[in-house]
Amino acid sequence: MAAVSAGTGRGTTELPIDPAGLAPREARRLFAGGLVAPTSGWCQGFTQANLIAVPRDLAFDMLLFAQRNPKPCPVLDVLEPGRFGGGILGEGADVRTDAPLYRVYRDGELVEEVADARSVWREDLVAFLIGCSFTFEHPMAAAGVPVRHQEAGRNVPMYRTTTRCRDAGRLSGPLVVSMRAVPADRVADAVRVSSRYPAVHGAPVHVGDPAGLGIVDLDRPDFGDPPVVEDGDVPVFWACGVTPQAMVMESRPGLAITHAPGHMLVTDARDSDYAVP
Amino acid sequence: MAAVSAGTGRGTTELPIDPAGLAPREARRLFAGGLVAPTSGWCQGFTQANLIAVPRDLAFDMLLFAQRNPKPCPVLDVLEPGRFGGGILGEGADVRTDAPLYRVYRDGELVEEVADARSVWREDLVAFLIGCSFTFEHPMAAAGVPVRHQEAGRNVPMYRTTTRCRDAGRLSGPLVVSMRAVPADRVADAVRVSSRYPAVHGAPVHVGDPAGLGIVDLDRPDFGDPPVVEDGDVPVFWACGVTPQAMVMESRPGLAITHAPGHMLVTDARDSDYAVP
Repeated sequence: MAAVSAGTGRGTTELPIDPAGLAPREARRLFAGGLVAPTSGWCQGFTQANLIAVPRDLAFDMLLFAQRNPKPCPVLDVLEPGRFGGGILGEGADVRTDAPLYRVYRDGELVEEVADARSVWREDLVAFLIGCSFTFEHPMAAAGVPVRHQEAGRNVPMYRTTTRCRDAGRLSGPLVVSMRAVPADRVADAVRVSSRYPAVHGAPVHVGDPAGLGIVDLDRPDFGDPPVVEDGDVPVFWACGVTPQAMVMESRPGLAITHAPGHMLVTDARDSDYAVP
Repeated sequence: MAAVSAGTGRGTTELPIDPAGLAPREARRLFAGGLVAPTSGWCQGFTQANLIAVPRDLAFDMLLFAQRNPKPCPVLDVLEPGRFGGGILGEGADVRTDAPLYRVYRDGELVEEVADARSVWREDLVAFLIGCSFTFEHPMAAAGVPVRHQEAGRNVPMYRTTTRCRDAGRLSGPLVVSMRAVPADRVADAVRVSSRYPAVHGAPVHVGDPAGLGIVDLDRPDFGDPPVVEDGDVPVFWACGVTPQAMVMESRPGLAITHAPGHMLVTDARDSDYAVP
């Protein structure tokens, strides 16, 4: 049983739990109770989701933005306006409390991070659950592709690119990508395995030179931790679920609430539900 | 060069064209010019789409209904409110004229079929393009699975089922399925090939006994033509893009405009764009 190092409201604690073996409901209860921890590796086999909640009058534009940009914004579920649980999130769940950490954006500015979003939530917010590449990291590792940031205990590096998303109504923004350095003889396997998960970003958008995406310095990601790159590795880039946050920064809706990068919502859906064929 | 038998405003005509070899733009121009014909087999390799247009104030519910029911309602594109072309439909296209035949629903009742929808279109309508199983019929045939309705020159049979779609806001309705009778030793191939096209209904929803879907008489479909079933065939059911029309009949929006079954919009997208992995 592995211990997990985590911050709570009261500081960092070693928890006597095996996060990989928890049921999603148990993990959500821990996070609702105040635990703050990155969710990589939690509840193995269950799907984790990016969160973005926007006011009802922007909900069509948001859903259209996601539909037009399915690689960075694959929608797994949308909660009915005014509802906090149900769907793949599970009955009894509360989207306002069950992620470990939230970000609050006002007029496109990140104004605070909170572990409980109830005090900033509004009745007219509509919550979107967006697929996360954690889903294909496990089968990729099982296929012999090293997942270097996981092995190093780091968050995946993420970059804004000069590639534009397709606009939708009042919403626009750049594509954000995550990067995994893959040995040259494993790139084909990384493509093959991730391609089987189109609902969670799917195949890479770019393999090779970061300059092709307008990334100047691979060692300075815009989100997450610096990459681990070994000799003979090729940088492989996947569309990333932080893209909606970059869209919020550019499009400046009055209010948007998201998860904090790496601190995802653990759902009742299974990774295997999203595999094709 | 095959001739195509088609109705125009002036009656049925033999056209000296090979519809399979036409470019999508050319096909759309013929239909905009008044030609009425089923589009099965037209513009081979290019993606055909179901159409549903609803008023702007229902657009979020419609997009959510599609997102929650991705097997019957895989959204290929949504036109910006007030726009008639662009996206996968191609520049210069006009969604109001470029399908061969339209259905107009008022308060859930089918009130007329028109070859040109401009006189009934409203500025606040939002047009949704939904994937169509025509996309996987060609690779299925290429893999040795007989596509019996095509061979017989018939429309595919479609059935309302007792399976419910997931509701979305004010929208609800039953799942509609299409049926293809497949030899028992080819069912696995039919599943395998269609699974590779999740954006156009994907894998079957049901294989075998029609009673499991609440279908009483396979020879009396609710839409399309009666099936061709040979000895040793197994009925295989796929989610169908006519599902939004059944939803309209149940949910009764003030106005909805759709294509007529089998008379699809031919887009500039390629079938191969939707294949995974």
